[in-house]
Amino acid sequence: MESPLNVLSPFFLYLCLLLALFQAPTPCISDPNPLQDFCIRTSPAGQSAATCKAASAVVSDDFFFDGLTKEGNTSNSFGAGLTQATHVQFPGLNTLGIAMARIDLAPGGLNPPHTHPRGSELVMVLKGAVLVGFVSGDNVLYQKVVRRGELFIVPKGLVHFQKNTGKGKAIVIVVFDSQFPGIVPAPFALFGTKPAIDSQLLAKAFKVDGEVVTSLLSNFGN
Amino acid sequence: MESPLNVLSPFFLYLCLLLALFQAPTPCISDPNPLQDFCIRTSPAGQSAATCKAASAVVSDDFFFDGLTKEGNTSNSFGAGLTQATHVQFPGLNTLGIAMARIDLAPGGLNPPHTHPRGSELVMVLKGAVLVGFVSGDNVLYQKVVRRGELFIVPKGLVHFQKNTGKGKAIVIVVFDSQFPGIVPAPFALFGTKPAIDSQLLAKAFKVDGEVVTSLLSNFGN
Amino acid sequence: MESPLNVLSPFFLYLCLLLALFQAPTPCISDPNPLQDFCIRTSPAGQSAATCKAASAVVSDDFFFDGLTKEGNTSNSFGAGLTQATHVQFPGLNTLGIAMARIDLAPGGLNPPHTHPRGSELVMVLKGAVLVGFVSGDNVLYQKVVRRGELFIVPKGLVHFQKNTGKGKAIVIVVFDSQFPGIVPAPFALFGTKPAIDSQLLAKAFKVDGEVVTSLLSNFGN
Amino acid sequence: MESPLNVLSPFFLYLCLLLALFQAPTPCISDPNPLQDFCIRTSPAGQSAATCKAASAVVSDDFFFDGLTKEGNTSNSFGAGLTQATHVQFPGLNTLGIAMARIDLAPGGLNPPHTHPRGSELVMVLKGAVLVGFVSGDNVLYQKVVRRGELFIVPKGLVHFQKNTGKGKAIVIVVFDSQFPGIVPAPFALFGTKPAIDSQLLAKAFKVDGEVVTSLLSNFGN
Amino acid sequence: MESPLNVLSPFFLYLCLLLALFQAPTPCISDPNPLQDFCIRTSPAGQSAATCKAASAVVSDDFFFDGLTKEGNTSNSFGAGLTQATHVQFPGLNTLGIAMARIDLAPGGLNPPHTHPRGSELVMVLKGAVLVGFVSGDNVLYQKVVRRGELFIVPKGLVHFQKNTGKGKAIVIVVFDSQFPGIVPAPFALFGTKPAIDSQLLAKAFKVDGEVVTSLLSNFGN
Amino acid sequence: MESPLNVLSPFFLYLCLLLALFQAPTPCISDPNPLQDFCIRTSPAGQSAATCKAASAVVSDDFFFDGLTKEGNTSNSFGAGLTQATHVQFPGLNTLGIAMARIDLAPGGLNPPHTHPRGSELVMVLKGAVLVGFVSGDNVLYQKVVRRGELFIVPKGLVHFQKNTGKGKAIVIVVFDSQFPGIVPAPFALFGTKPAIDSQLLAKAFKVDGEVVTSLLSNFGN
Repeated sequence: MESPLNVLSPFFLYLCLLLALFQAPTPCISDPNPLQDFCIRTSPAGQSAATCKAASAVVSDDFFFDGLTKEGNTSNSFGAGLTQATHVQFPGLNTLGIAMARIDLAPGGLNPPHTHPRGSELVMVLKGAVLVGFVSGDNVLYQKVVRRGELFIVPKGLVHFQKNTGKGKAIVIVVFDSQFPGIVPAPFALFGTKPAIDSQLLAKAFKVDGEVVTSLLSNFGN
Repeated sequence: MESPLNVLSPFFLYLCLLLALFQAPTPCISDPNPLQDFCIRTSPAGQSAATCKAASAVVSDDFFFDGLTKEGNTSNSFGAGLTQATHVQFPGLNTLGIAMARIDLAPGGLNPPHTHPRGSELVMVLKGAVLVGFVSGDNVLYQKVVRRGELFIVPKGLVHFQKNTGKGKAIVIVVFDSQFPGIVPAPFALFGTKPAIDSQLLAKAFKVDGEVVTSLLSNFGN
Repeated sequence: MESPLNVLSPFFLYLCLLLALFQAPTPCISDPNPLQDFCIRTSPAGQSAATCKAASAVVSDDFFFDGLTKEGNTSNSFGAGLTQATHVQFPGLNTLGIAMARIDLAPGGLNPPHTHPRGSELVMVLKGAVLVGFVSGDNVLYQKVVRRGELFIVPKGLVHFQKNTGKGKAIVIVVFDSQFPGIVPAPFALFGTKPAIDSQLLAKAFKVDGEVVTSLLSNFGN
Repeated sequence: MESPLNVLSPFFLYLCLLLALFQAPTPCISDPNPLQDFCIRTSPAGQSAATCKAASAVVSDDFFFDGLTKEGNTSNSFGAGLTQATHVQFPGLNTLGIAMARIDLAPGGLNPPHTHPRGSELVMVLKGAVLVGFVSGDNVLYQKVVRRGELFIVPKGLVHFQKNTGKGKAIVIVVFDSQFPGIVPAPFALFGTKPAIDSQLLAKAFKVDGEVVTSLLSNFGN
Repeated sequence: MESPLNVLSPFFLYLCLLLALFQAPTPCISDPNPLQDFCIRTSPAGQSAATCKAASAVVSDDFFFDGLTKEGNTSNSFGAGLTQATHVQFPGLNTLGIAMARIDLAPGGLNPPHTHPRGSELVMVLKGAVLVGFVSGDNVLYQKVVRRGELFIVPKGLVHFQKNTGKGKAIVIVVFDSQFPGIVPAPFALFGTKPAIDSQLLAKAFKVDGEVVTSLLSNFGN
Repeated sequence: MESPLNVLSPFFLYLCLLLALFQAPTPCISDPNPLQDFCIRTSPAGQSAATCKAASAVVSDDFFFDGLTKEGNTSNSFGAGLTQATHVQFPGLNTLGIAMARIDLAPGGLNPPHTHPRGSELVMVLKGAVLVGFVSGDNVLYQKVVRRGELFIVPKGLVHFQKNTGKGKAIVIVVFDSQFPGIVPAPFALFGTKPAIDSQLLAKAFKVDGEVVTSLLSNFGN
């Protein structure tokens, strides 16, 4: 009879499999000073794994990313296309505390009001004229039309937006002090959640009647 | 003739005054490991100063705060009263990475959707039954009716709310991993800013017509 | 003959098993800014694992904890019962930098002098009158009788205690700026260790004779 | 009549004085990544100020410290002499996250059980044989006789001690991952505080009678 | 006779002046989570002051910077022009953990090997073709020709360079996870210091004879 | 026919193996506040794994290290021998934010100019007379002959060196505010990389002709 300690026994193989699976999404949780030169993120699935590629297998291309060279798709109701370079798309950023994104804006296009829960954002306009604004905790709006090569800084966690106010297309790049700053788009986080936030709650929050809330919910898929 | 180096000369006094004034709001900027046991914040005015009370003058009462014992005023359209214990109200918290607040909710009262740009929030209900919810970056709503002594955790920077769903008054305390987590109330940060966010921009963001935006802006003082 | 590279060979299976086992307790080590919205801790065994529950499996209850609703057991020599809500009991706290505990104190009950190696502590009394005190690095004792709804802050790593000085039971909640602040109870860390600290060393440290040390060690199980 | 805006008026001078005095101890509060190459601490008085010496006045000697070359005074009941090199004694350490101390131990000398609220400690013995031990949060004692050139690591915030177990004098250096880790000597923090901790509280904490507590308090100046 | 406590006395005025002057460069030292929405840096002189502009005086332009719009001067031996946007040039970045710089490179131009002591660097080429490389702690060179819109990441503190390998001018922007990452240009830090590093020491370090060192020192002003 | 879900099938075994292997180097990335008392690093291979030894298996020797007691080998062109105590050699340091190294210097020996990308360095001379110097970001050289028991502090990320200027052997210990500060030796990082940095690039950087560069490259193995 087979001993349960035999490594070929189903018991051991299941154990091995379970242990491996439980660990699969081994995330690391923080952004500061790294503990090694680099750690190319290897994540078989999901967004949370944070294991490193073996140092011997690392090549120059692991530090390179060309995903921001293409124009984002602006064929949507906002006229805006977002292309990200976080640790998900660019695993070489892992542990290094920086991420970037490209925002393409059709004429009149808008990156609607949103916050980043884990990062400040430095905005650089590469093309066009873009109204960039943010709202402080005292509800003061600071805004400015930003043009090619100019910068605007949005403090951590505050509501902000970018709107193309020029005649042609606009291109914006934004950089963050986090490899995965997150994004909370206000219209979706309020009216487009799954499940929807209770409509009476929303009506009270925005001091509107149920009809307006129903319409807002419907605008964002609820 | 008076020498310019005379300490009583207007030149020197102005210099002194200017230097002092420029420094008046000397903030420290971060939340982690302190560099001393404590630093009782002394701020003549404004929210940003971060000088310490002389150690020899520190007394037990500097570490004590009774500002959360009184019921907050819920006579407002939300039926909610917020009382804070951050480094502004409770200077002994300075450098120690924690703050607290008390939320009183009349029956049906609502602490409307908001974010804290610099802190996670642990919610404890002291009285009543309160629906606590937050929205993840994937726009998933996690919510739960929380009762006396129960806890609900809201991750850093995400949109969340508390609504009294019980019959009587409710009392909630919330704690933060920051001495000054900040607060961004969504309705005000979107529709109640000074100056107002451009109404066409808001209309596009929420996919509503100008009339609705005008109404929303008007609801929040614009 | 079987090739050693055959995945069914004992060599490969052992390797697999060893790798998996070595990784079993994959802890993350720090407390600051998270790298994702949340990471519900999944730990098959022990206190140190820090893998995340798959996002698709996360439900509202993962952010909810009712373990502090019950009265702690105060039938012990201190008259004190401690109930914790750290990442061990409440996995949803993982990466979010906050923990909480409930302390029940019988009349005269005492939470004996202790330190938290990795956290400041904000004390709120929910019921009764409690003497809360801490000792600074200059050996100054700051203490205060704290009553319902009142707060007292204990700086990171300093010796502190809570004692019920009222007539009835007392309930205290304490919150930390760490998801796992640790606890070092002075009487146990000095006289109740396994193995015991050398008794002559203790006698010298506390300037007492061997008889007193023997008695103190015996009081705490040595 | 003198205008209140006259810079020589008592009103303005008082204002200036008050502003300056309030700011005098302007501490910075945290230990991580600096914002400049260095910041030589200039503190007119007290331990908490953290202003920088003007860069133009900085000289090589600002980065140099010879205070650990002399033998500490071990003529005390512990047979131990502590000499520190923190940001107080060695201002060049400011913002750089490291401190050091030298402990001289007479034969049989003891650095009594203590904790550092804000730092891990790496121990190196320079001379002699020293028993170094610490107690984990599970009250396990880890200890080892450490000899010349050998190291022992004490995790952050845990109770630890050093005792000379050799025949001659011993010299130990200890280093910290904080420029000002603080020190909480257990015997003093428990029995030598000003004012004393209530003796009944201490009796209950250590399960001893009042006489023993009186004796312990008396041993440490109370 | 005038009392020394008279606020108009020279003693008090000197005291006031001294206190104010000592504080002038009040730096904060770390980069992480801010304690307020923003803190526009006000620095009368020098690089180290970190006081905040009064919130009431803050305007949108404080968050705006156009200093990177102009081409840098490449009329130097390297054919490279560096224009910075750190907290020195752009005070609105203060406390927000991000900085940026623009590098203009003439054909063949080179930003010589250098390190940033306090920041990782994300490189984006805006124009031209640029060889970007860095050297790991294992002395492996990772390098790549980076073109318009493409990214290359340089881990914290490692030696790296950018060289224009295209036919025309090149423009590069680089972003950092620090508001003031610092810069250590290898040729200058080795051969262009004031005073010079001992030439025999340099000869030994680089295994060259004195003549070569003399020449290298001379190349960089020594 | 065998089912693909059979745990003995090659498919499942491969999956198990792959998952385990991908995770093998599970690094944690940051240095700050730990989340447990200690975490003895267990790394089967490579430098990046960061799993913890099971608490029940931890013994006192895990916190002990005697690797710095032996003299380093100084039989090389620099006359310098480096012996390290980082988390690689001394797994007990893991999560505790400190590392140490011993540098032996033959008469005239030199630890050539280098930087640590992730740590400040506090230098203590144990024997002999050693010239310690560092170069600020303004290219100012600060240097000092340091003798037995004296300290010199090198700020994070700056170029520095140690040279034996005494008659006999010298011994230096250096401590870091990181468990793995990294090391970038300037001569090797510039001229000894694999592959070599382009020689024309180096010639331009150091303003020398190709012959000198060829010689420098050759000195460091290229």
